[in-house]
Amino acid sequence: MTARLPPGVAVTDPDLIASYLRDESRFTDADRPLAVLTPRTTAEVADCLRACHAAGVPVVTRGAGTGLSGGANGVSGGVVLSLHRMDRILEIDAVERLAVVQPGVVTGALRAAVAERGLFYPPDPGSVASCTIGGNVATNAGGMCCVKYGVTGDFVEALEVVLADGRVLRTGTRTVKGVAGYDLTSLVVGSEGTLGVVTEVTVRLVPAPGRPATLVASFADLASAGRAVAAISGAGVDASAVEILDATTLAAVDELTRMGIGGAAAMLLVQSDSSRPGEAAKVLVEAAALCEAAGAEVAVSDDPEEASLLMEARRQALPALERLGDWLLDDVCVPRARVVDLIAAVERVAADTGLVIGVFGHAGDGNLHPTVIFDAADLASETAALAAFDAITAAALELGGTITGEHGVGRLKAGWLARELDPVALEVQRALRRTFDPAGLLNPGVVL
Amino acid sequence: MTARLPPGVAVTDPDLIASYLRDESRFTDADRPLAVLTPRTTAEVADCLRACHAAGVPVVTRGAGTGLSGGANGVSGGVVLSLHRMDRILEIDAVERLAVVQPGVVTGALRAAVAERGLFYPPDPGSVASCTIGGNVATNAGGMCCVKYGVTGDFVEALEVVLADGRVLRTGTRTVKGVAGYDLTSLVVGSEGTLGVVTEVTVRLVPAPGRPATLVASFADLASAGRAVAAISGAGVDASAVEILDATTLAAVDELTRMGIGGAAAMLLVQSDSSRPGEAAKVLVEAAALCEAAGAEVAVSDDPEEASLLMEARRQALPALERLGDWLLDDVCVPRARVVDLIAAVERVAADTGLVIGVFGHAGDGNLHPTVIFDAADLASETAALAAFDAITAAALELGGTITGEHGVGRLKAGWLARELDPVALEVQRALRRTFDPAGLLNPGVVL
Repeated sequence: MTARLPPGVAVTDPDLIASYLRDESRFTDADRPLAVLTPRTTAEVADCLRACHAAGVPVVTRGAGTGLSGGANGVSGGVVLSLHRMDRILEIDAVERLAVVQPGVVTGALRAAVAERGLFYPPDPGSVASCTIGGNVATNAGGMCCVKYGVTGDFVEALEVVLADGRVLRTGTRTVKGVAGYDLTSLVVGSEGTLGVVTEVTVRLVPAPGRPATLVASFADLASAGRAVAAISGAGVDASAVEILDATTLAAVDELTRMGIGGAAAMLLVQSDSSRPGEAAKVLVEAAALCEAAGAEVAVSDDPEEASLLMEARRQALPALERLGDWLLDDVCVPRARVVDLIAAVERVAADTGLVIGVFGHAGDGNLHPTVIFDAADLASETAALAAFDAITAAALELGGTITGEHGVGRLKAGWLARELDPVALEVQRALRRTFDPAGLLNPGVVL
Repeated sequence: MTARLPPGVAVTDPDLIASYLRDESRFTDADRPLAVLTPRTTAEVADCLRACHAAGVPVVTRGAGTGLSGGANGVSGGVVLSLHRMDRILEIDAVERLAVVQPGVVTGALRAAVAERGLFYPPDPGSVASCTIGGNVATNAGGMCCVKYGVTGDFVEALEVVLADGRVLRTGTRTVKGVAGYDLTSLVVGSEGTLGVVTEVTVRLVPAPGRPATLVASFADLASAGRAVAAISGAGVDASAVEILDATTLAAVDELTRMGIGGAAAMLLVQSDSSRPGEAAKVLVEAAALCEAAGAEVAVSDDPEEASLLMEARRQALPALERLGDWLLDDVCVPRARVVDLIAAVERVAADTGLVIGVFGHAGDGNLHPTVIFDAADLASETAALAAFDAITAAALELGGTITGEHGVGRLKAGWLARELDPVALEVQRALRRTFDPAGLLNPGVVL
């Protein structure tokens, strides 16, 4: 196969290969690949895929490796195709409010580049400083912005995709509307590297937001925080973030940051980024009234540094919980009104298993990340952690939710997909995958 | 086959069948179907499709028949499956802001029902008073709201779909986010009855808008109107409609309504429906300044009756043009900044062919409906009209646009799809269609 690869793309040094073994997930299989391929152009990606197709070699496509579900883990006898060298912003069109980027562009770099033009690319996964647009497209990544702006897929207008056999497909249009043929763009978004390799992404941009104003609401019990979330959602408050941290997470963050935020049963962070004069403050007055009616102590700040410090408490949730032991992070999403039921279910699981489970996440979307803390050196603790993870995921399904809100199915949840989708949906999903990849070479082992 | 159909669904009366022959498009083939099937439930739809599948009988699914591209025209030897009896709103959930409806629900009826609960379903195709949600899903229909709210697909969260062989598929979730498996919902939206029959639709709702305020800007030349559209788009003015009518359309509407709006080279209608106190007026002050800077005479009204009268001028565009003769309506979409180039191209086509061509549409989205007026009794006139239609569609493609913004490919544009999509995209589109419908029985003759 090597002879058919473009020159300079194959990495076979064992130490380098080892650093491409897996993403940041836990409890997911990963095998050492034969090689890492590092193409620089769409043509080179096509050459790589043609060579792998001819040789029957599996291909795992990788962005920055920040995924949390094992979607970029190496497979035995396969290659990892890393897109980190395709990292150019090709175009920013301020009139049409579009950007055209290569898949290896870091999400935060795109946000910074368009900000210089007075524009905004909203998607902000937790790993925004290091994850790439290609990976975001593969998982249909979310973040804190979604409650106002939507997920990655809501901003993808067009794609260039190299198919399993090396053919190059272009999907979508640069126009605002367009209904010529099936929506292949949305089909590829969230397909976790199983339908093709995304080599170019056209994203929609929005006007720059205003200076954010932020509200912190501390609750003496979880049910009250849940009532506040339901009230904020029900009233259609135009917040740009509605995040929650439970007592366990707050204590861990306080231990890490010494911000003095420990002690409450739950905290809500509500942010508004409206650019209209006075509008952000108005949004927070509404949110504050609803939180206070639910029994919270509320503090509001429109100082950008203070706002950024408060949101930093939320961003430190996972790093803070990581210090408590080994961790297993879930990503479940329920109807907004059921968030408090989900948190209560997690508390029962924690009590039943005797494990510490921190809960934080995007309350305004019903999308939470319960994080099970355990001791990987202790088999009983590890077994309990896996049982807790399963119980939480099952609880989300029982509440009318989904097994994954924004991290993807990957390897971590592959066994769960049949519990969420009915048999007909699974048949159709499998048939679609075969249509794009009859030989089954693209990211085998994930999703289905 | 009749023996296998559910009792009471087959209509074979020739006069009744004749009324299901075609939609409202011109120049599209339509053949008398064998029968019209009128199922009342998902189970009956599944029975109908199983029977047709077993007998090898083609199925054309039909909503209200208001389509403009021949997507619901009968085929010889086939049946028309009309969903008009499945017209119930099954649920309105004000907390999650969702509605679950059967496909035969009239779009305007859904909008009215959710308005009673203080909610809003934005999509508003021109035929909103008579078209159905099922048809809107099939074409991914748009309307005047899109510039602010997006198209039908942006509001579809989940679907129930009966596949060609009678299997029942459920797609999507009731949660705000969800990435478990491929996005089958978006694949079915806009698939024009070729992938399955939609039997239930879960749509997202938004908080009720405010009392609309409306601006009318009259321009002495088209280029100035184009500059105003570009300025409004570029400034990110938060308008809920940015509509244009050209001189031909204005004269026709004035002839019909006697509103006194004739004489200008072009008119822009800009509306804001913000529910924030004073916000709609502010939006229109911004838009007015941009229009005046482009040389327009501007009038603003926040009286709801006057606003509705002004928008009525826009809604009367097609009825008014219809009075001038036979008509052939196009539906092209270009990048927003190219709207004025598209209108100029249409003017050249009108001059070249000697035909009257009215232009109106959703300027803020770059989506226009150039309408060619001709005399169907005169073969030369008809030939010229078809040539003009082709020249306009070709001009849109040359400007980086699409052959259809919101009406769908249907039969009218089936020959054009290969001019917009590259060969690989066409191959993938065909392969997807075969995956869902290997026997090729669902709406043969449309799209591909």
